[in-house]
Amino acid sequence: MKRTTLTLALCLFAFQAEVYAEVTRAAPLNVKTEAGNIQIKTIAEGLENIWGMAFLPDGNMLVTERAGRMRIVSTTGKVGEPLTGLPPMYAKGQGGLLDVVLAPDFATSQKIYFSYAEPAEGEASELNSTAVSFAVLNGNKLENLTHVFSQQPKINSGHHFGSRLVWAPDGTLFITLGDRYSEKDKAQTLDNHLGKVVRINADGSVPQNNPFVNTAGALPEIWSIGHRNMQGAAINPTSKVLWTGEHGPQGGDELNIDQAAKNYGWPVITYGENYGGGKIGEGTHKAGMEQPVYKWVPSIATAGFIFYTGDKFPQWQNNILLASLKEKTLVRLVLDGDKIIKEERLLKTELGQRLRTVVQGPDGLIYLVTDEAKSKIYQISPQ
Amino acid sequence: MKRTTLTLALCLFAFQAEVYAEVTRAAPLNVKTEAGNIQIKTIAEGLENIWGMAFLPDGNMLVTERAGRMRIVSTTGKVGEPLTGLPPMYAKGQGGLLDVVLAPDFATSQKIYFSYAEPAEGEASELNSTAVSFAVLNGNKLENLTHVFSQQPKINSGHHFGSRLVWAPDGTLFITLGDRYSEKDKAQTLDNHLGKVVRINADGSVPQNNPFVNTAGALPEIWSIGHRNMQGAAINPTSKVLWTGEHGPQGGDELNIDQAAKNYGWPVITYGENYGGGKIGEGTHKAGMEQPVYKWVPSIATAGFIFYTGDKFPQWQNNILLASLKEKTLVRLVLDGDKIIKEERLLKTELGQRLRTVVQGPDGLIYLVTDEAKSKIYQISPQ
Repeated sequence: MKRTTLTLALCLFAFQAEVYAEVTRAAPLNVKTEAGNIQIKTIAEGLENIWGMAFLPDGNMLVTERAGRMRIVSTTGKVGEPLTGLPPMYAKGQGGLLDVVLAPDFATSQKIYFSYAEPAEGEASELNSTAVSFAVLNGNKLENLTHVFSQQPKINSGHHFGSRLVWAPDGTLFITLGDRYSEKDKAQTLDNHLGKVVRINADGSVPQNNPFVNTAGALPEIWSIGHRNMQGAAINPTSKVLWTGEHGPQGGDELNIDQAAKNYGWPVITYGENYGGGKIGEGTHKAGMEQPVYKWVPSIATAGFIFYTGDKFPQWQNNILLASLKEKTLVRLVLDGDKIIKEERLLKTELGQRLRTVVQGPDGLIYLVTDEAKSKIYQISPQ
Repeated sequence: MKRTTLTLALCLFAFQAEVYAEVTRAAPLNVKTEAGNIQIKTIAEGLENIWGMAFLPDGNMLVTERAGRMRIVSTTGKVGEPLTGLPPMYAKGQGGLLDVVLAPDFATSQKIYFSYAEPAEGEASELNSTAVSFAVLNGNKLENLTHVFSQQPKINSGHHFGSRLVWAPDGTLFITLGDRYSEKDKAQTLDNHLGKVVRINADGSVPQNNPFVNTAGALPEIWSIGHRNMQGAAINPTSKVLWTGEHGPQGGDELNIDQAAKNYGWPVITYGENYGGGKIGEGTHKAGMEQPVYKWVPSIATAGFIFYTGDKFPQWQNNILLASLKEKTLVRLVLDGDKIIKEERLLKTELGQRLRTVVQGPDGLIYLVTDEAKSKIYQISPQ
């Protein structure tokens, strides 16, 4: 009997070792940067197109797979079963389960907020738009699912859903929303949520100090207009102001300081052009429209980014770390106040993978997520 | 009787109000910088040529006056009586009581270390050199005075004493030592401490991994050579390596990454020239001699500096803040790794005073010390 138990235990051990073998076997990668040497370690792999990630207080990660699953992944690479209790999703094209963040009061409420492509009601409909819900995380279950926002109108498109979720210091929630590609001109008008940043309260109500609450015909959730597809957003820790990353057309990715009521120009002004060539809009400047604080021409396909504020990389303090899809690089930007005074491109040769987003861990280390059918999570530490 | 007590109390209050009147009356100064708006407040004044300053765990400041006094100053501007128990000093020219730092184990040992111009024995002698002692701080008294280092040889000069004290992460103590002006050629030879950085253990003994301990004829305390007068030094929080600020001749101030056994060139190579004109040495480059990481031509008269690591100025994280005497400016340097990629000069128009040193408070605020017959301590906070 004892012998059987031991054999079983050994078998289980062997099985577990097999599952995580690749992770534990891969040697850490040492990389030299212009400001310090770093080490890259694979901590999880095999998840399908990770889009968003948030650290739980216990150090585990809440991870979204665009196909419509959310899982808890430990920093030792243990991938949990999909959480139950998510709403129905439009998981096609660029749509599906997108960003995830903890509620500011997560410690007491256990609430998490997430964005996703929401299908219209009715089985035959292809209409969809970005939506945001919250739910209470209880073990492996999402409970008390509560819908707080849907982008208006719904469109038949598989493109440009945005959508990063960022808590403002005042407890309101910023949601970045794409122009849905086929409807780009609507980014300039206030009667819809396409190509907008919106700002809501945690319960889904409209903050009464939103810039267009008293504008006739304007949707009151709107914060700023004239956007294309913001796949990155973060609060600047110095100015406390929202910065958004604009995934532009061919040429013309932008970083913007995203302020109330401002118009960021798309598709009237842009540094980009149509895929395959061909002018978009009227040029690069126009009165009443904002210029980006930084731009990439040609485009690198910007995605998620952070302002680094941890203690593990003193030399990267306050730097922006930004994931690039097409260029397969981690971009490091050095700021001086609101100016970007230097760019370094990292990990293109060493990893060479489409990067979806960057998250700062509670341990001050940096976590990098690839956008692949088998996504990886990398941990970056100082050497 | 009660009336008398009240009158006395009021008189004392009036007297106290009078003493600190100027401090409390001065309105804070608001200053715009390229990276954030700051506020400057005078927190103490009337001290004579402050040279060094260190924060005590209770938030009060230990302040040296070059004339040979050390005092405790509260952040509300209360200036204590001079501490008793200092050794005799050569308080002439640039000499006197210089830097002060707490021992790494101050919390349990109450030891402080300080540098000063030490006279030779014998009343008639004008010979002197920089020395370092420690003592135990007990209220207003310095007790158990212990001498740990004297620069060799003593020289009849009132110039170029150094001398910043910086603890290395391994618990050894760096001391920056000047060339005494009249003896600059000795900065190139290993048989003396002139124009050197030295490194000692906390008890004054020689670390056995010092670079010249096994070199015949070399003084074993030597860390690096070829310096003129380093009035600033700090450990880079990223690389953990010592950086020194070289107060050059006319033209030619430098920042150096100060490494074991390296020769920083003075007076063989320099970007400066003699006061009033005239070449010094052989030029600006020579094999076997280090180039500065940054230089100021013309000279700004560099003094004390820090790498900012507090949480009050996220936008200045890892920036160097450096006091300039002649230029009467606070220099802000933005680093990327070991490179300096931007310089901003602050407070020249707003303060216009010779600045002796910069200290980061335990509160994350920045404290600035002027070099005047009536020195001030300014507190810099975000606006």
